[in-house]
Amino acid sequence: MTPGTPFLCVDLQRLLANLDRTAAWSAEHGLALRPHAKTHKSPALGRLQLERGAVGLTVATVGEAELFADHGVTDVFIAYPLWLDAARATRVARLADRVRLTFGVDSIESAQQSGRLLRGVPVGVLVEVDSGQHRTGVAPHEVHRVAGAALDAGLSLDGIFTFPGHSYGPGAGGPVAADEARALGHAASTLALAGHRALVVSGGSTPSLAATHSEALTEVRPGVYVFGDAQQWELGTCSPEEIALTCCATVVSRSGGRFVVDAGSKILGADRPAWASGFGRLLDLPDARVVHLSEHHAVVERSGTPPPPLGDRVRLVPNHVCSAVNLVDTLYVQGDADLETWQVAARGRNS
Amino acid sequence: MTPGTPFLCVDLQRLLANLDRTAAWSAEHGLALRPHAKTHKSPALGRLQLERGAVGLTVATVGEAELFADHGVTDVFIAYPLWLDAARATRVARLADRVRLTFGVDSIESAQQSGRLLRGVPVGVLVEVDSGQHRTGVAPHEVHRVAGAALDAGLSLDGIFTFPGHSYGPGAGGPVAADEARALGHAASTLALAGHRALVVSGGSTPSLAATHSEALTEVRPGVYVFGDAQQWELGTCSPEEIALTCCATVVSRSGGRFVVDAGSKILGADRPAWASGFGRLLDLPDARVVHLSEHHAVVERSGTPPPPLGDRVRLVPNHVCSAVNLVDTLYVQGDADLETWQVAARGRNS
Repeated sequence: MTPGTPFLCVDLQRLLANLDRTAAWSAEHGLALRPHAKTHKSPALGRLQLERGAVGLTVATVGEAELFADHGVTDVFIAYPLWLDAARATRVARLADRVRLTFGVDSIESAQQSGRLLRGVPVGVLVEVDSGQHRTGVAPHEVHRVAGAALDAGLSLDGIFTFPGHSYGPGAGGPVAADEARALGHAASTLALAGHRALVVSGGSTPSLAATHSEALTEVRPGVYVFGDAQQWELGTCSPEEIALTCCATVVSRSGGRFVVDAGSKILGADRPAWASGFGRLLDLPDARVVHLSEHHAVVERSGTPPPPLGDRVRLVPNHVCSAVNLVDTLYVQGDADLETWQVAARGRNS
Repeated sequence: MTPGTPFLCVDLQRLLANLDRTAAWSAEHGLALRPHAKTHKSPALGRLQLERGAVGLTVATVGEAELFADHGVTDVFIAYPLWLDAARATRVARLADRVRLTFGVDSIESAQQSGRLLRGVPVGVLVEVDSGQHRTGVAPHEVHRVAGAALDAGLSLDGIFTFPGHSYGPGAGGPVAADEARALGHAASTLALAGHRALVVSGGSTPSLAATHSEALTEVRPGVYVFGDAQQWELGTCSPEEIALTCCATVVSRSGGRFVVDAGSKILGADRPAWASGFGRLLDLPDARVVHLSEHHAVVERSGTPPPPLGDRVRLVPNHVCSAVNLVDTLYVQGDADLETWQVAARGRNS
C-alpha cells in the first residue's frame, strides 16, 4: 500500500545502476571502494554495496558503526577524528572485538588519549589530512607528528585519509581532486621520510570522484552517489535521470502562480548552499524551484506555467539526500513488483 | 548517567519559567493559548502546557494529532491546509471520534473535498488567512468564499487563523503583529458581512507574540517560546538566560584558532536564515559563531581567544529548535535531581 505523503521513495533500478557504475569505475581505476553509509544508514543498502565489491563501509560515528556491525558488516572505518572518553573507548573496544575497525585521528592529543584508553585493543587509526576544506585534519607536512604519537601510544597506523569537501561548489570537482592528490601525496611522502608507511591512502567525495587522481589513492569513500540529489544535479555530478531518491508530496495550496506541497524541512532537510538555485528541485518539472521552505511547506515557483491541480502528487529532489534520509525511519523502494520497505536503522545515531 | 555527545539537554527550571511566563501573558491579555507542539513533539511537555491552562494543542500533521491523542490530549488543532484523500480522511474521522478536532482549509476545492469525505464527522474547520507571509492562506477579502464552500459542504466553521511567519526577521515582530491584526480583522469583517461568525480568531508566532494586538484575536499558537533558540536570541525575542535547550557537544579538533565540535546538521538542523550570524551559537561563549556546519562537525570561530581544550564539552544553541528536536528520539532533562528523559514521541510524524 502506498503511504500517505510526504514519504521518501527509492527507484530501485536507478539505485542499482548507480551502485554498479561506481563499483565498475573503482575496479577500473584500481581503487578500493568503501562507501560512506551515512548517506543511506540502511543495512539493506549497505549489503548491496558489499555484494558489489565494496571492501567495507565508512561511517561517521561509533553509533553508526555499532549498528552496521549488528547487521553483519565486518569491516568499518569511522572517518571522523574521534575524541575518546572512557565510555566511548569501551564502546570502541567492544566493536573492535566484532569487526575490523579503523578510525580517524587528527591531533597528537587525540592519538595519545586513544592509545591510553585502547591499550591492547585491535584497532587501526588513519591520520586525517586537510586537503583544503579546512574543517578537520592536519596539514600534509605535519602528518608524521600525529602518526608518530599514535605509534608511540601503541596504536596501529593504517594510513591517511582526507575528505575533499570543498568539492561542493560549481566547477570545483576537478581542481579539488587535484588538491586531494597533492595533499595525500605530500602527506604520504612526509610519513615515508619519517620512516612510516601508509597502507591506506583514502579520499573521495561524490562531486570530485570522476576526477580522482587514482595513482595518488588506494581507496575512495563516496556517499551520495547511491541516490544523487539536487546538489549533485546542479553541480553536474549526476543527471536527473540518475536520481534514485525523491520525496513524494501532495499539492495542498495554490496562489499567485505558486504552489505549496506538504513536504518541508522536516523531511527534505534545510541544506541550502549559496550556489544552489533553491531548497530543492522537482524531478518532473526541471524548471520549477523550491523558493521557500518551512517545516511542512515547500513553496514552488514555476514561471509561465499554471500550477498543478490541488491533490496532485509531485516528486521533490532534496538538496542534500543524507539529511533527508536521516529524517525518516523507512525508505519506500519501488522495484518491478510492489513497494518494499527498507529501514533507516542508523537514523539519528549521532553519538 | 550522562549520554555520549552530542545530545539535546533541557534546562527544566528555564523551561518551566518560559511556560509560566507565556501562560501568564496569555491570561492577562485574555487570549486562549494553544501552543504549537511541533516544537517539542513530546507528550511530557504537552502535559505541562495543558496543566498551565493551555486550551489544547496545535500540531502540523494528522500523524502528530494521532500521537498526542494517544497520549490523552483531548483538543487538537491541525494548523495546516490539509488536502484529504480517502486514506487521510479515514484517519481524520477516527481522530474526531477521540478528540475535539479542528483543521485548516485555504481553498474552495479543499473545503469541498473535505466536506465530501467527512460527511457526518464531528470536525471543525478554520479558514487560513494570509497575513503577509505569502505561503498559504487566502487574502482577507476572500475568506468568505472558502468559509461559504465549507458550510455548503456540510463542515462546521469554527473561525479563522493565520501564521504571521514573516515575523522571523530583525525588527519584524511589531510590524508583523500589526499585519496580523489587520488581516484577521479584515477577514472577520468579510465573514460577518457574508453572515458568518468566527468564534476563533487565531494567530501568533514567538517573535511577534509580545506585540500581539490582543483585541483582534481570541487565541495564540506560539511554539518556540518553550525552549528559545539562536534565532530568537538574535531577534531579541529571548535572552540567552531564557534558552532552555542546548546541544551538549565535545571539542574534537582545533586548528588556526578555530575549533570543531561533534555536533552537526544531523542534530542541530541546517536552518540558516540570511540574517542569522551563523549556524548556531554557544550558550557560554556568546562571542563565538558556528561558521561552518556539516553533518557531524560544527566549526566554531571566536576571535582573539584561544580555543577550548580538546575533550571539553560545550553547549550549542541550535538556530531553529524545532528542527533540532525532530532529529532525536530523546531529550535529556536536567532538573534538581538526576537527568530525566522525555521521549520525542512525535518525531518524524510528517504525514
